[in-house]
Formats: sequence, structure tokens, C-alpha cells
Amino acid sequence: MPSLTLSDIAEMLHVPAPAGHAQTTVTGMATLADAGPTDLSFLGSDAYLKQFAATKAAAVIVQKRVKLPRDVARPVFVVDDADLAVARVLERFAPAVPRPPVGRHHSAFVAPSASVGDGARIGMNVFVGDGARVGKNVVLHPGVYVGADVTLGDEVELHANVVLRERVTLGHRVIIHAGSVIGTDGFGYRWDGTRHQKVPQIGTVIIEDDVEIGSCVCIDRAKFSATRVGKGTKIDNLVQIGHNVVIGPHCIIVGQAGLAGSVTLGAGVVLGGQSALRDHITMGDGSMVAACSGVAEDVDPKMIVSGLPALPHRQSLREQAALRRLPDLVTQVRKLQEQIDELKRAGGAS
Amino acid sequence: MPSLTLSDIAEMLHVPAPAGHAQTTVTGMATLADAGPTDLSFLGSDAYLKQFAATKAAAVIVQKRVKLPRDVARPVFVVDDADLAVARVLERFAPAVPRPPVGRHHSAFVAPSASVGDGARIGMNVFVGDGARVGKNVVLHPGVYVGADVTLGDEVELHANVVLRERVTLGHRVIIHAGSVIGTDGFGYRWDGTRHQKVPQIGTVIIEDDVEIGSCVCIDRAKFSATRVGKGTKIDNLVQIGHNVVIGPHCIIVGQAGLAGSVTLGAGVVLGGQSALRDHITMGDGSMVAACSGVAEDVDPKMIVSGLPALPHRQSLREQAALRRLPDLVTQVRKLQEQIDELKRAGGAS
Amino acid sequence: MPSLTLSDIAEMLHVPAPAGHAQTTVTGMATLADAGPTDLSFLGSDAYLKQFAATKAAAVIVQKRVKLPRDVARPVFVVDDADLAVARVLERFAPAVPRPPVGRHHSAFVAPSASVGDGARIGMNVFVGDGARVGKNVVLHPGVYVGADVTLGDEVELHANVVLRERVTLGHRVIIHAGSVIGTDGFGYRWDGTRHQKVPQIGTVIIEDDVEIGSCVCIDRAKFSATRVGKGTKIDNLVQIGHNVVIGPHCIIVGQAGLAGSVTLGAGVVLGGQSALRDHITMGDGSMVAACSGVAEDVDPKMIVSGLPALPHRQSLREQAALRRLPDLVTQVRKLQEQIDELKRAGGAS
Repeated sequence: MPSLTLSDIAEMLHVPAPAGHAQTTVTGMATLADAGPTDLSFLGSDAYLKQFAATKAAAVIVQKRVKLPRDVARPVFVVDDADLAVARVLERFAPAVPRPPVGRHHSAFVAPSASVGDGARIGMNVFVGDGARVGKNVVLHPGVYVGADVTLGDEVELHANVVLRERVTLGHRVIIHAGSVIGTDGFGYRWDGTRHQKVPQIGTVIIEDDVEIGSCVCIDRAKFSATRVGKGTKIDNLVQIGHNVVIGPHCIIVGQAGLAGSVTLGAGVVLGGQSALRDHITMGDGSMVAACSGVAEDVDPKMIVSGLPALPHRQSLREQAALRRLPDLVTQVRKLQEQIDELKRAGGAS
Repeated sequence: MPSLTLSDIAEMLHVPAPAGHAQTTVTGMATLADAGPTDLSFLGSDAYLKQFAATKAAAVIVQKRVKLPRDVARPVFVVDDADLAVARVLERFAPAVPRPPVGRHHSAFVAPSASVGDGARIGMNVFVGDGARVGKNVVLHPGVYVGADVTLGDEVELHANVVLRERVTLGHRVIIHAGSVIGTDGFGYRWDGTRHQKVPQIGTVIIEDDVEIGSCVCIDRAKFSATRVGKGTKIDNLVQIGHNVVIGPHCIIVGQAGLAGSVTLGAGVVLGGQSALRDHITMGDGSMVAACSGVAEDVDPKMIVSGLPALPHRQSLREQAALRRLPDLVTQVRKLQEQIDELKRAGGAS
Repeated sequence: MPSLTLSDIAEMLHVPAPAGHAQTTVTGMATLADAGPTDLSFLGSDAYLKQFAATKAAAVIVQKRVKLPRDVARPVFVVDDADLAVARVLERFAPAVPRPPVGRHHSAFVAPSASVGDGARIGMNVFVGDGARVGKNVVLHPGVYVGADVTLGDEVELHANVVLRERVTLGHRVIIHAGSVIGTDGFGYRWDGTRHQKVPQIGTVIIEDDVEIGSCVCIDRAKFSATRVGKGTKIDNLVQIGHNVVIGPHCIIVGQAGLAGSVTLGAGVVLGGQSALRDHITMGDGSMVAACSGVAEDVDPKMIVSGLPALPHRQSLREQAALRRLPDLVTQVRKLQEQIDELKRAGGAS
């Protein structure tokens, strides 16, 4: 990892360097508890003031709203947005991702009819099929499979053992992590009276610019036309995306979420972990699904839904609150009946 | 893609060709909205009549029950079952799956004690272990691992990077999509007081004829005897099948479903996406589980269950309907108590 | 499989050999129903007495508490713990896992700066990056990717197509099953007003001794510092473990569970299948989550939680019981109102 002076960091964060420590150097980033004397750390809330007092960190990035004790001797950087500051510092400390060298490993296969842009790095045992087009500075880690007629934009990076089936198209700067599979046949059969007959899935998958996809993600090819992931969308690990799904730009899809066939997501939609969307539903721009929810109906723009089945989040919270009281309610209703019976007896007796 | 005349299509669908357009050609299939002048499209319900009016498609397959306007000039094929008609046309338009050539890629390894049937296609970097038997016309895409003593029936197709562990058996025409793993040790341990001791999993996995398995599916080997998937069953992506599960013929298992150890499915069972089945339960022939449900008890034949925990579907719907009213019910019960208190006071006052 | 006499088995189980059958041999283990005349079987509960009567097994391990008929002719081993006895026998019958031979397959790549311990088995197409350290007797099956600066302890076994990204560390005797990916970037972005900006994930993953990990499992690298899995923990297939998760020793994580970022598990925690844990929560030592539950708050040591959202298990059961009665409760409350109205009319009429 690189070594930075506190003066370098101050410049990066657009704040003053801690007086008298401008030339102190740090070589990494760690939590307050884990930090050693050459680490930078951060303090984002009052809850960690004790750890701050005890940390061995060389210096600490501190969120402005945190109430520091008056007599702090430790060098600090007071910033408006500690998360952003940390992200910037991490960029400087980030070690380079090890990549195959520019060129083609001798064990790789590139079909004579495929084209490969300048600066591409094609690793060990990579397969590039007929008619594939590989953009400039593309990185294909070992064991990657690029099917026939696939198109990869510039600066695409495919990690080890990623599989792109035939005719899939990726925009520029798409990153796909190890073990993901794009372009498997959509799950479509017709029962013909004796067996499930496969419905051919002749479409493809289009991934737009700046999409990042986690590990062991499955995105199926369309029945016809294309399954589509909009630009800048980020997808976590183990997500399932069915055939003919259309995902807008800048969505966030958290781990193990599942989108059944022909789902449509607008722009900036957020799907929580393990959430599930029924086939053919539409989620409006900026809508959100809480983790573990199951969405069975269309969701309006900016609406937040949660639960199984998913309801507007407020309604879901009200139901949950009522559900916490339900066992008592059952008792209460029994007692009401007893009181009414008593009143009836009293009335009859009168 | 191939080019077909409307006359060809009429013949395929057993309906008359549109008058005066028999020689018009189409080269693909698309939705009404996406179709261009050389595409065929389809209309399955009245909901899409506006798109039908505006489409550029050369011709449209129309479901009989749809009420077309009287003066339709566009060539149409009126059919009893639009989905079936579309499936048939897709079969004709389906481009061939790119496959390794017949024979063995020089980088592949086939153990001398393994046997390989005529017409097999063994791609780049494939591994075929000792004693494996590979049937006729089998297709092994790049990076496939076929363990020792594995048996593959005729016309099996294993997509890139599929792993079959030792002794697994596949019937004829089984398709497994990229990245799936068959034959991992079942998840079995015994706590011995200080650590979880591994229970050996010495059984295997048997996949019968005509099964299709999606991507990143895991099917574990049995503790002893075999985990079994019945003929004609279709399994979607990211499904987990535990040790000693026995799945009947012609089941449908949708994406991200999970079957714990020793589950038994009868014939024609349908499991919705992200559904979960507790270990050792049995589902009768033709039973179904709704998406996102968690089944903790045996399910009778033909029964539909839903919810968490899964209940008979009607009961589940009734509970959900009641749950929607629960917050109001809490208020209502409070008001009942007030009225009773009032009646008591009135009674006491009288 | 090896052949054992009933005398051998008696010795293994520390019980007497069945009189007159000490030299009978068995060659495998099967259920009562499946067993043939050279198989050993087992009987764990009275529920299977009919199958016991009909089995063809050469001998049967019988749980002490089972009430056998008086006149049993079949050789039996009566034991205190049938599961443990079966596990011991399975160890003897377990066929050896086929492994690459000691040494390095000619198609494997091992960086000159990497070190490899004695007895290591490096299979076909394996990649071992710069500076990696491979311990003694490590087994790397075909297609494994070991990134730069990875450390593997002694006797580690990585099954086919496992991917370990750069700088990941594994202790001794770690087993990872086929298709799993360790060390993918954590899922972290910041919205900068126009796009999700990637937050560098510069940490790593540390897996301690004796951990076993199933297939298609994803464990992400930390934002900084390390995602950590404690010694002896066992992880089933298709599990998602986010960045900066810390898992204690001897935990059990069942298939398709998901742990969001910065979750902390104590020692001996059990997570059921498809359970989900919100980011930053802590589960105390010996706590448990039922299958399909979603945990949104910290869980005390030894506490069992279930449901969506997860509650203490007793409370969850009480709510579920009340929920079963909810449709009737709605009717009951309507009738209460009717009775009260009647009482009011009666009171007004008096």
C-alpha cells in the first residue's frame, strides 16, 4: 500500500492539515479498534468516542457533528461527510487489482473471426468465440468464457470463470465478478399433456455502461428481444434475473434478490436483500423494496414497500404493530364476550 | 436467423395463410411495440389492442378470443392457443447454440479409462475423470469438470464450467446450464462436544432423462444411496437441493427455491421462486407451493400451499385478508370495551 | 467400497457381534427399504419397524430405545446413539475422493514468486498468482483460481473452479466446494448526485482452520480490515456473506442464508436455511435463527428467534397461533358489536 502524509490527506479532503503533524505518514485505513500507529481511522458518531479515546491510529477523520472532547491531542480531520472522506482516502490506499498482462495468454483461445481492441488483457484459459468483439483495455481473467457474437465495450472487466453465453452485449466499463453467468436460456416450458416442452429462448441480454455485477449472479436471455440492465445499475451477489426483465438506470439490487420474468424496474429503484418480484410487475422510478419482501403488484414511483406480500411500508408497519398485540387481542375479545354475557344475565335478571 | 414466408408459418400453425400475403417473408419475432416490418408478432389479450393498431409487424399471431376490429388490414393468424403458436415459431427462428466441434479439443483431458460415445463434442479445458462414461452426441462446453466414474447418457449438454463430482449419473438428453455443481457433499455434521465432525456423504446423485437444470444450481450427493431428480423435471437458476432429496418426474422448481435434506416430491409438483421446504417433508403428486413460501409440513396431493409458514392457500388468503383489517380491529375492540363500560355504568346507574 | 465383517463393525461400535454372524461380510450402507443382502442398514425409531421386518439387509444397527419384537432372527447391533454409529460406519465405507496426483499438472500455472508446500496436488488448469503461499498437502482441483498473495494453510482442499481473489487467507484443513468465490469486492457505493460511485474495498477475507464451505457460496472482502470466518464453522451452499462480517467459531450456516455487511456472529450460532440478517446486527453466542427468518435486531446469547421480522421464538409461535384464529376473531368481533347494539336497544327500550 502507498504511504501518504497527513498533508497529502488534508489536500485530498479540502481541510486543514492537523497542526504540527503535516509530515506524519500513514500507510492504511482501519477501524478505531484495529488501527495501529501507521493507520488512519475515522469517527462517524458519538457512539464510538470511547474507542476514539483509546485508538492507536496516527490520525482520525471526524464527522463534524461529533462532539469531540476539548483537549484532543490526536491529529484529526474534521469533515462534513466522513463516509465520503473515507471513500476518497480508500481510493488512494486501494492496491491495484492483479490482472493478466496486456496481450493474450498462450493457453487462451480467441476465434480468428473475433476482434480484440488495443490494450486488452486476455488471461489463462480464456475462451473467446466466433465473431465476438472485445473492446479496448478489456480485462478477461483466467477461465472466462465469452460466447460467439458477444460484444464487450471498452474497459470491461470479467473476473475468473465468468460465463457470457452467445450474443450477449456489454457496454463500456462493465465489471462482472467471478462465477456469474449471463445469457442462460430463460425458464420457459409448455406442458403438452405428457411433458414440459422447452420454449426456445432466442433473445439476448444487454448490459449498459458502468453496470457492476457481483459473483454467482444469473441473468437469463430473453424469450425474444432482450433482457436489459440499465446504465450505472449495481447488482450484488447471487441475484436471479429472469428472461425479459428490463432494469432502468442506477438501480441497486442487493444480494439474493430475485426478479421473475418480464419484471420492469424504472430508474433508481432499490431492491433489498432476498426480496422477490413476481413476473410482469412494474416498479416506478425511485421506488424501494425492503429486504425479504415479496412484491406481487405494481409499485408506484418513489413508493416504499415491505412485507410478504409487500404492502406500502407504513401499512406494513401498522400491521406488524397490530400483530405484536394480536395474542392479547384474542384474550381481550374473550373477556369482552364474558362481560356482555354478564350484562345480558343482569339485563335478563332485571 | 432464417427467413420464413407467411405461407410457411400458416402451415406450421395449421391455419390459413393471410389472403394476398402468402409470400411476405419474416425473419424474426418481437413484441408488438418492438417489432419492425420483417418481424412476426403476437396478440394474446384485448389489453394490447392499441399496440396492435400501432405495430409495424409484418403479421401478427392473434388469440381467437381477442376481439379484433372489423376492418383489420394487417395480416393475422387467428389461433386457439397463441402461446403454443409462438413457441412453435420460435423453434423455427431459434439460432443454433454454438458448440465445440465433434471430437476432443487438444487442451481437454479424457482419462484413458473413460469411454466416449460417437459424435461427442469435448471442448476446451474439459476434464473427464477415470472410468467416466460419456454417451453419444454429448456436448461438453469449455471448462466442464466430469469427475471419476460419472455416467452421462446420450445427447447430454453441459454448459461452460459445470462441475459434476465423482459417481454422479445423468440420463439421456439432460441439459445443465453454466456454473452449476452436482454432487457436492451433503451438509451433515455431528457435534462431538468440541467440534462439528463431518459425517461422510458416500452416496451419489442420479438425474433422470430429459431433466433441465439452470445456472448456479447446487444438488448435493446423498449421505448414502442417492439424491434423485425424476425424468422431465425442470429446475431454474440458483436452486439448492439437499442430500437424499427425491424429486418425482415432471416437476417445476423455480429460481432460488431451497429443498432441505430428505425432502420427497411426487410427480408434477411445482415450487415457486424462493420457496423453502423443511427437511424430511413430502409433497404429494401435483401439489404446489407459492413463491416465497416456507413449507414445514407434508402437503397432500394436488394441494396448493402458500405463506410463511405455508398453509392451504385458501386459509392463507383468508388470514391475509383478515390481517389487512387487523389495525382497524384493534381500534374496534377498544371501542367495544368503551361501549360495554358505558352499558355497565348505565346498568349500575339504573 | 471396502468389505467389512460384522465382527469388524462390532469392534468399531464397541458392542458385541451378533451371535453366529461374526464372519458375515457387508460392503455398503443403505436404508431399510433399499438395502440388499450385502448391505448394513439402521433402525432409529419405532416408526420403521415394518420396514425392519421386510428389509433384506445383512444386519441392522438399532437404536437402544426401539422396541424390537422378541423373536428377531436378523443380526442386529443395539447401540445408544444410532446416528453416531452410522457416521462411524460411513467413515469406513467412504470411497476416497478422486484427487489430482501429487505435483503439478503441466497445464497449471504457478507464479515463480509463489511457494508450494510438500505433497501439494495441483490439478489441470489451476492458476496460482504472484506471491501466493500454498501449504503442505494442499489439493487444488481443476480450474481453481488462487489470486496473488493468497495464503493457504496445510491440507486445504479447493474443489473444481473455486475462485480465491487476491490476498485472501485460509487456515489449515479448510475445504471449499466447487464454484464458490471468496474475496469479491464488498457491495459499497456512494451516490454522488449523478451516479453510484464505487467505494474501494481494500480489505480481505480470513478463513480460520477447519472451516468447510459449500458450493456457489460468496464471501466478500472487507471495505478495510477483514471479513472473517471463525474456526470450525460450516457453511452450506449458496450462502451470501457481505463485507466486514465477523463469524465466530463453530457456527452452522444453512443453505441460501444471507448475512448483510458488518454482521457479527458469536460462537456456535446457527442460521437456518434462507434466513437473512440485516447489516450491523450482532448475534450472541449459541443463538439460533429459524429457517426463512429475517433478523433486524441484535439477538441475545442462546436466544432462538423466528419469523419475518424475527422475534423470540415463543412470541413468534404465540403470534402464529393467534393469526390462525384471526379470521374467526374478525367474525367474533362483529358479533360482539351486534350483541352490544342489542343490549343498547334493550337498555333504551327499558
